[in-house]
Amino acid sequence: MNFSDEDFHLIDLALREDIGSGDITTDYFISENDQASARILAQERAVVAGTEVAAAVFRRLDPDLRVEVVQKDGAIVAGGTAVLEARGRARSILTAERVALNFLQRLSGIATLTHQFVEAAGNNGAKILDTRKTTPGLRKFEKAAVVAGGGGNHRFGLYDMVLVKDNHLLMRAGLANLTAAIERVRRERPGMRIEVEADNLDQVRAFLEIDGIEVILLDNMRAAEMREAVAIGKGKVKFEASGGINLKNVRQIAASGVDFVSIGALTHSAPAIDFSLELTHVAA
Amino acid sequence: MNFSDEDFHLIDLALREDIGSGDITTDYFISENDQASARILAQERAVVAGTEVAAAVFRRLDPDLRVEVVQKDGAIVAGGTAVLEARGRARSILTAERVALNFLQRLSGIATLTHQFVEAAGNNGAKILDTRKTTPGLRKFEKAAVVAGGGGNHRFGLYDMVLVKDNHLLMRAGLANLTAAIERVRRERPGMRIEVEADNLDQVRAFLEIDGIEVILLDNMRAAEMREAVAIGKGKVKFEASGGINLKNVRQIAASGVDFVSIGALTHSAPAIDFSLELTHVAA
Amino acid sequence: MNFSDEDFHLIDLALREDIGSGDITTDYFISENDQASARILAQERAVVAGTEVAAAVFRRLDPDLRVEVVQKDGAIVAGGTAVLEARGRARSILTAERVALNFLQRLSGIATLTHQFVEAAGNNGAKILDTRKTTPGLRKFEKAAVVAGGGGNHRFGLYDMVLVKDNHLLMRAGLANLTAAIERVRRERPGMRIEVEADNLDQVRAFLEIDGIEVILLDNMRAAEMREAVAIGKGKVKFEASGGINLKNVRQIAASGVDFVSIGALTHSAPAIDFSLELTHVAA
Amino acid sequence: MNFSDEDFHLIDLALREDIGSGDITTDYFISENDQASARILAQERAVVAGTEVAAAVFRRLDPDLRVEVVQKDGAIVAGGTAVLEARGRARSILTAERVALNFLQRLSGIATLTHQFVEAAGNNGAKILDTRKTTPGLRKFEKAAVVAGGGGNHRFGLYDMVLVKDNHLLMRAGLANLTAAIERVRRERPGMRIEVEADNLDQVRAFLEIDGIEVILLDNMRAAEMREAVAIGKGKVKFEASGGINLKNVRQIAASGVDFVSIGALTHSAPAIDFSLELTHVAA
Amino acid sequence: MNFSDEDFHLIDLALREDIGSGDITTDYFISENDQASARILAQERAVVAGTEVAAAVFRRLDPDLRVEVVQKDGAIVAGGTAVLEARGRARSILTAERVALNFLQRLSGIATLTHQFVEAAGNNGAKILDTRKTTPGLRKFEKAAVVAGGGGNHRFGLYDMVLVKDNHLLMRAGLANLTAAIERVRRERPGMRIEVEADNLDQVRAFLEIDGIEVILLDNMRAAEMREAVAIGKGKVKFEASGGINLKNVRQIAASGVDFVSIGALTHSAPAIDFSLELTHVAA
Amino acid sequence: MNFSDEDFHLIDLALREDIGSGDITTDYFISENDQASARILAQERAVVAGTEVAAAVFRRLDPDLRVEVVQKDGAIVAGGTAVLEARGRARSILTAERVALNFLQRLSGIATLTHQFVEAAGNNGAKILDTRKTTPGLRKFEKAAVVAGGGGNHRFGLYDMVLVKDNHLLMRAGLANLTAAIERVRRERPGMRIEVEADNLDQVRAFLEIDGIEVILLDNMRAAEMREAVAIGKGKVKFEASGGINLKNVRQIAASGVDFVSIGALTHSAPAIDFSLELTHVAA
Repeated sequence: MNFSDEDFHLIDLALREDIGSGDITTDYFISENDQASARILAQERAVVAGTEVAAAVFRRLDPDLRVEVVQKDGAIVAGGTAVLEARGRARSILTAERVALNFLQRLSGIATLTHQFVEAAGNNGAKILDTRKTTPGLRKFEKAAVVAGGGGNHRFGLYDMVLVKDNHLLMRAGLANLTAAIERVRRERPGMRIEVEADNLDQVRAFLEIDGIEVILLDNMRAAEMREAVAIGKGKVKFEASGGINLKNVRQIAASGVDFVSIGALTHSAPAIDFSLELTHVAA
Repeated sequence: MNFSDEDFHLIDLALREDIGSGDITTDYFISENDQASARILAQERAVVAGTEVAAAVFRRLDPDLRVEVVQKDGAIVAGGTAVLEARGRARSILTAERVALNFLQRLSGIATLTHQFVEAAGNNGAKILDTRKTTPGLRKFEKAAVVAGGGGNHRFGLYDMVLVKDNHLLMRAGLANLTAAIERVRRERPGMRIEVEADNLDQVRAFLEIDGIEVILLDNMRAAEMREAVAIGKGKVKFEASGGINLKNVRQIAASGVDFVSIGALTHSAPAIDFSLELTHVAA
Repeated sequence: MNFSDEDFHLIDLALREDIGSGDITTDYFISENDQASARILAQERAVVAGTEVAAAVFRRLDPDLRVEVVQKDGAIVAGGTAVLEARGRARSILTAERVALNFLQRLSGIATLTHQFVEAAGNNGAKILDTRKTTPGLRKFEKAAVVAGGGGNHRFGLYDMVLVKDNHLLMRAGLANLTAAIERVRRERPGMRIEVEADNLDQVRAFLEIDGIEVILLDNMRAAEMREAVAIGKGKVKFEASGGINLKNVRQIAASGVDFVSIGALTHSAPAIDFSLELTHVAA
Repeated sequence: MNFSDEDFHLIDLALREDIGSGDITTDYFISENDQASARILAQERAVVAGTEVAAAVFRRLDPDLRVEVVQKDGAIVAGGTAVLEARGRARSILTAERVALNFLQRLSGIATLTHQFVEAAGNNGAKILDTRKTTPGLRKFEKAAVVAGGGGNHRFGLYDMVLVKDNHLLMRAGLANLTAAIERVRRERPGMRIEVEADNLDQVRAFLEIDGIEVILLDNMRAAEMREAVAIGKGKVKFEASGGINLKNVRQIAASGVDFVSIGALTHSAPAIDFSLELTHVAA
Repeated sequence: MNFSDEDFHLIDLALREDIGSGDITTDYFISENDQASARILAQERAVVAGTEVAAAVFRRLDPDLRVEVVQKDGAIVAGGTAVLEARGRARSILTAERVALNFLQRLSGIATLTHQFVEAAGNNGAKILDTRKTTPGLRKFEKAAVVAGGGGNHRFGLYDMVLVKDNHLLMRAGLANLTAAIERVRRERPGMRIEVEADNLDQVRAFLEIDGIEVILLDNMRAAEMREAVAIGKGKVKFEASGGINLKNVRQIAASGVDFVSIGALTHSAPAIDFSLELTHVAA
Repeated sequence: MNFSDEDFHLIDLALREDIGSGDITTDYFISENDQASARILAQERAVVAGTEVAAAVFRRLDPDLRVEVVQKDGAIVAGGTAVLEARGRARSILTAERVALNFLQRLSGIATLTHQFVEAAGNNGAKILDTRKTTPGLRKFEKAAVVAGGGGNHRFGLYDMVLVKDNHLLMRAGLANLTAAIERVRRERPGMRIEVEADNLDQVRAFLEIDGIEVILLDNMRAAEMREAVAIGKGKVKFEASGGINLKNVRQIAASGVDFVSIGALTHSAPAIDFSLELTHVAA
């Protein structure tokens, strides 16, 4: 991943909220000249993600730290495995520790949960995708974690795809309105993919008549309905299943013939993976 | 809660990452002049938190929206309860929706989990506290959510308390060093509370000899050890239990006589609460 | 158009670079309490664009100014037509004047030139599009100006579409490599439109064999070649003409059957439209 | 030119608007480890400007890129001449390419047009100056481009000179008012140069009576009037010609005896110079 | 004074460094709904400055506060005089209090000291000016305070005047070099005032031969030397006295015939004026 | 001291306000390739502070400058002593000079005045502390200067300690209210130190009855009252003297038995120490 200045922005924000007017403990208990080596260990089995972000946290605080990523994002590691090493000023390592771990624990949590969903879904052609239900400020990092876990990314934001949902349809009732708006998108923003959310098969059928719709989102439908939707729309559009999907029902849904299964829990409810920082060498 | 410019900063960052170069769907499917009323509903039983943050998201995007918090942070609500209402330009409501919900689902998740820990701990004088294991950028909001759930806040960052941990002790071995550093803190930063982490009872005993230590953190000790630590240190210092605490063992630990029980999971592993936005009235 | 904080950011930057440590002339020659009304006039025939941006400049400098857009973006006006009116503190109007005009003159220049290209292209189904050859910092505004002039928007940036150009192909020579990379995009970023640049008909034929390519860009081809490309690819992909297109040859190119004609000059070489601010009423 | 943090700010803004959440094409079609050398070529005869800005774009995106300016600003080059070379990560070069070119094409356009005006004006002692009619956000760069083209810079903003224009005079009618305000400027801001705009010879005569006016701007006057103004004011003040000046009439105006000829078109209507980036060496 | 976004920037920075993660005392000891009225009193005789800045601090923290400036900048007030009143949320008033007072005490200190220098200098045509020896970040505010105290402003920064000092001369030894550089400034930046620092009368004489020098700074000279410099240069250039000037010697120096007397102490060593905030009315 | 991005932020702000659109004098009078060595000299006896800040100013403007701190903060130096050396591009050294000196002169002024108070207070166990009466934006640097001068730091801001002042008590009259609020702080923010301001001995006695108050601030009391307060509260709480303390009365107050003596003048009225930059070697 390449870091943009907006990404560094978030890292700085995270360091600032933790350090504020200064890390009093290291200021008084660690000497300015102390050097140390450290490594970050996964404390449980995990799919690793966020190592480059964690490395950037250390480097951002102190450009002189030498930081090495030992396990790349996407690696599956056992508890006790070192994923990142750092050496340099001891103060810098200890001051940056918590922010680095906070990124790592969350992003690896997401990658690990994604991996579980991918495994549970089985090998039937449906792709596991994330949603926009991400942590405010961390979307780009969390979407990279989903890819590290074997999933794919749905749209990054409101700007890179059209997705007409129930509330939009409620505001602009009538297929004529919908058709006209889609026509205008195709004229003025011809590069945009257009997806529409359907709550039932009647809507699916209606949408299949409209030129320009490329994906239909099947919202909170039962697997049987999804199979029927796929049957009538196959080859004309792609289908995305969404809503109420968990590790137990994901295989059945994925097997319905849909192209994509999108799951909010990947990013909003992944439990953290436990990581810790261990000093391996210290010198005054 | 009063919002600082740093708080608005994070809200802006979250809006920016979602909206980017523009919300194409509302631009094309909602008319500029459309007005709407909307309410946000909890979809499951929850302790609510983040309502003011969600309200600020709407107002930040469009200062003309009229937003009202219906359920204050800390309220315990059943599924289906409206927690926030907004009305004004339909485009603004729909564009801000996801970011507002993303804050709300996470912060209410934290408040709800905290409440569960407080209930589980029982009424024995030990206070449930959070840690610094928060989501990067969201610390202030997440710590407010912990209070909404009935918990208390440990230090906000590295700047408002001294907490000497194992890695600091490793770097500055010897009680003489520790004592001297504590003495210097008291001279130059007399307002600072000083806490030291102990891994075993020998350390506890040693720390009790040092002037100026006000709190001893008992790291990953068994409840029996904690009881013994409390017995020997009672009245001289306060005790904080930390490490490996879950909903099952929290009562036993809280009953050990410690003053505080701090739990990282409150902020790093709380599952999201499900919220949705419903349009209640629309007008062209 | 909705303004994001990034848009306000640019407006602030523009005000800052003009005002710096203060507008000395108005500080000394206009009294603090002076009130004025003003209107901005197009001094020549133009397609208007940037009126909302100009209005935002005034409001951003002084939220108490009352600003009204008289001619909406896209309006075709004769010389001497008022497009915007403002009233309030005279100092604020005069201090903001130049920055507001600087936006207006450039954006209306773009809309006017786009309109000329659209007229010149004639009515043959090809859409006139802009490119990424925009003024640094002003892309969103300039792309809105292109729409105001009757054109459409190509991708907004590197983030919302895949466009494989000659330099990319040079780095990853071989169709197998190209095919594999396209396959990976479709798996991990299924929402992304994929376009590839072709310099000759052999490349066009090769690209038509690859699954997932949706648009082929015909770079600097003659109209005859374009007709042939369209003939062999019709119905399988869409075609975009690009390179060396001007007001004289645009009709012939547009008539070749391509779907899109993209023109850098719309944004990089549009001469400014002349606007001026006239005080209509002043009061001490 | 030395870059200030505000300059880097604009460069970052430009990169951010182009890259957004990531350059998908290079992410998928260029390998992380690919190295490349590249050079930027002028595609037509030009006075070069903006090379240091373009170099800064590359370095800002990736500090490890080695970038060398081959033709300094102000150089007159034939089509096909390399002006800048870069080598390092291929991804970085391709991602930064368009933003670098966008700066270069505009700034060289300005330098080239300025050069044409300087040549057209001839050698008669009048200096060609720019105005404040610059692109929002790019003023400092554009004013450097004017100097590269052989012109001089009028004031940089509202903060570094007093220029009393018709609208100011309208607000503060009466010479007594004007005289008093000028007197106050001289007392409180003694370092400030004072210029006043005159629309006719009567105004010129009146202004010549006021102590402290150092320059009179002759707005939209005919060359004959300008000659007369110069005749009556010579030695007392300097004269600046402004308004309606083009490549055809600039020589006659410059010959009128005025000290300065200021031209908005230098910065608001210069057509872009065509540049392209060519990969010269690639390695995996 | 009009506030730019850079000014608000500094105010925000000041609020942020004081408030950080929150004003705990008001959060716990003042109720959210408490209303209050307050006024700020000068505790000693002073020339007031910074009232608009202090007002902006309150409004910036809480736009709903109603703030009124009672004594305008430049007013001479006795101890006990109210200079500013505010009413609204009690929490907001108390949280903003210290930052508002910190601006007011410093800026009024500067205005008061300036006034003392102006009085001490007497009425002999020499103007008291400030220098660039201001508090980092507060220059614009401090320069306004100098004007409030009856002084004038030297250049605001390195960008609005040329001032060639001893170190510049050391680097570019020789009058030919100096003359050539001045010539280039006049050609490329014709609006810039040019001043040169002289340490002795020989330098003064040499500088008087160079075309384009408008002001000569007499650095650390005795009053007798200054009188001689004025005698030989009168009418050709203006003279500025600088260095080692205090309330005791300022009259003699001002009487030497120089046009300006510039004094660093105005901004770098003015003792603070004591102000306090008094609650006048409180309501739950 | 470690610099946070907020610290660099202030340094950038200070450079920006001084340099603005460019340092015209060095641009024209110093050649781009000129190299120089320079040292900064204290011109009078001083306790040095701010050397790292001054060094950061140079490095921030030009990362290639080699800067060395010769006298560390806290050193007591005679007039004529070099405190910092820099070498590299002459332009960079001269452009950064004034901002670096502006920090140094103020911070050393604070350290020197603090040192005078510490000396004057004598050796009686009372610690000299600063207050929140600091220069807006410079608090962290000024508090470090107080430590360099031998003083200690009171709270850094509103966020790291509870300090209930007269205005808070006025709003929440009644000891019951005070007690309840203190109780709530202890529950929700157990790490916070609690201090209350007392104006007389009756208040002192009342506060001694309340659980949780750790420090009592004796506001503007006479030394005799302070001795009595200490007598009745000794061992229960700590005492801080504040208000109206100067170099003459500080010894008597410090001898009253209080633990802390806090003095606003340390930061709000310290006269600047005179520093100058001398070029020691120059090369083209």
